Amino acid sequence: MKLSPLDEKLPNFLHDYLPIEPKDDKVFVTLTYAQSLDSKISSGPGIRTVISHPETKTMTHYLRYHHQGILIGTSTLLVDDPGLNCKWNPFNETTNLDKYSPRPIVIDMKRQWNFKGSKMEQLYLQKKGKSPIIVVNKLPTHADQEENVDYFVYDNSDVIDWELLFLNLKNKYNIKSIMVEGGGNVINQLLLRHDLVNSLIITIGSVYLGENGVSVSPSSNVQLSDVKWWVGTTDSVLSCRLKNNKDSS
Amino acid sequence: MKLSPLDEKLPNFLHDYLPIEPKDDKVFVTLTYAQSLDSKISSGPGIRTVISHPETKTMTHYLRYHHQGILIGTSTLLVDDPGLNCKWNPFNETTNLDKYSPRPIVIDMKRQWNFKGSKMEQLYLQKKGKSPIIVVNKLPTHADQEENVDYFVYDNSDVIDWELLFLNLKNKYNIKSIMVEGGGNVINQLLLRHDLVNSLIITIGSVYLGENGVSVSPSSNVQLSDVKWWVGTTDSVLSCRLKNNKDSS
Ligand SMILES: NC(=O)c1ccc[n+]([C@@H]2O[C@H](COP(=O)([O-])OP(=O)(O)OC[C@H]3O[C@@H](n4cnc5c(N)ncnc54)[C@H](OP(=O)(O)O)[C@@H]3O)[C@@H](O)[C@H]2O)c1
Ligand SMILES: NC(=O)c1ccc[n+]([C@@H]2O[C@H](COP(=O)([O-])OP(=O)(O)OC[C@H]3O[C@@H](n4cnc5c(N)ncnc54)[C@H](OP(=O)(O)O)[C@@H]3O)[C@@H](O)[C@H]2O)c1
Repeated sequence: MKLSPLDEKLPNFLHDYLPIEPKDDKVFVTLTYAQSLDSKISSGPGIRTVISHPETKTMTHYLRYHHQGILIGTSTLLVDDPGLNCKWNPFNETTNLDKYSPRPIVIDMKRQWNFKGSKMEQLYLQKKGKSPIIVVNKLPTHADQEENVDYFVYDNSDVIDWELLFLNLKNKYNIKSIMVEGGGNVINQLLLRHDLVNSLIITIGSVYLGENGVSVSPSSNVQLSDVKWWVGTTDSVLSCRLKNNKDSS
Repeated sequence: MKLSPLDEKLPNFLHDYLPIEPKDDKVFVTLTYAQSLDSKISSGPGIRTVISHPETKTMTHYLRYHHQGILIGTSTLLVDDPGLNCKWNPFNETTNLDKYSPRPIVIDMKRQWNFKGSKMEQLYLQKKGKSPIIVVNKLPTHADQEENVDYFVYDNSDVIDWELLFLNLKNKYNIKSIMVEGGGNVINQLLLRHDLVNSLIITIGSVYLGENGVSVSPSSNVQLSDVKWWVGTTDSVLSCRLKNNKDSS
């Protein structure tokens, strides 16, 4: 499927929220997702839901172009069979998209997912996407290891400490920027981490998905700063940073 | 408290969504509320929460100026002690605001609320707001009736049928336009009534109120049409209409 063109105002709108000129040595982390007005990111677990206009889909690929890694949670991995590659590049190239694509980083602590047969594998074999780093709590036995993937063993605890994970991914794979695309559970955790998250970019589609949808809502109040809005045909996009709640507001 | 000035683009932005030139004889109904990104309209029941910028507060008063009635649910009435008057008018008048204010229509089926001692009474006595119509399920005894209010007895059922209520308010009080300001429970019901609601105007503040807040999310998917966005200093405003879900989309 071809992408619709990138709105010409978006690069400028997004510039300050992207790891284009990173200021420090830490991993640059961008949280991004598309939500309905009632803050749902899908109609229900496992239901692929159209929320945003094709022009904001293109924006997602533009964001992917600017990151070295793209991270998702276990449920999104298992239920969505996501591709996570980047179809946008400034040269309008349509082949060998792997070189423009971020490296998928997928949380699969209990090793429930198979790369083989996935959309990610298909894209990888067609040189349209990179192969994933699978975050596991234990290295699979030699016989259980899949080809063409990297296993990153996180065995400190069953609950990943994001700071440690990002640091280790940087040290081991030199990944200096990560875009976190979902799902709700992972986003809700990271919304509380102003110390780790550099930017937050939310697309708001003009629809209500209803009370049974998968929600984004952190466990407590989160204040934002450097707020900027872009308005498209039917959606709006908010770019901002997370505020340290202890800052004077 | 003085209102901040009305953004000069707002009247034009809102024009088509207001009962300025109503096309038919039915009551014109506008749903409007301010929500956080995670679709909460307060941090918790009874917690008065700042969601929007002063400029969108002014917009709310501009909307009130254009309606003859302003309706709220029981919880909002009991916990917020709302004033519901209109502080905006094109003449910059600051006295006798009652003539520019909509008539409060408050749902108090079980008669738990007292006008006496309320902010609404205070504004009424100062000629800054109109007196309310209290929707009850039974006329209070003569001794229990308060001064300066109207009781509208809705005794068909304990659950108000909105169509019937709006029709009766029009027949009895000649109220031809109603702005519904909340809370979540009332809004969620009316989001499913594309047959009754003419406009939906939502302010989205750039904050997360967190999972314990009072939510707006209807019981099922709601599609929207005629979507337009306005962007302010920190908030965005969406104006739209509810789509008949049976329409081809
Ligand atoms: N609209 C959008 O932008 C968008 C984007 C992505 C996904 N989605 C949607 O989001 C839905 C899935 O979201 P979701 O909230 O259900 O799940 P999710 O965030 O994708 O995954 C949550 C799971 O990941 C694992 N996990 C998360 N944090 C962890 C940590 N700190 N340590 C160890 N494991 C951790 C846990 O798995 P275990 O419970 O197995 O331990 C957790 O249950 C899908 O319907 C998908 O379509 C929408
Ligand atoms: N941000 C904003 O724009 C905004 C605006 C207004 C309010 N709020 C906030 O919203 C919160 C309150 O919202 P809420 O959802 O709890 O309550 P609400 O919508 O204000 O009131 C709900 C109650 O109204 C009565 N009611 C509603 N529909 C009815 C019907 N069809 N027939 C008969 N009675 C009906 C019921 O009372 P009974 O259960 O007693 O029968 C129901 O529980 C407050 O925290 C307030 O601050 C925010």
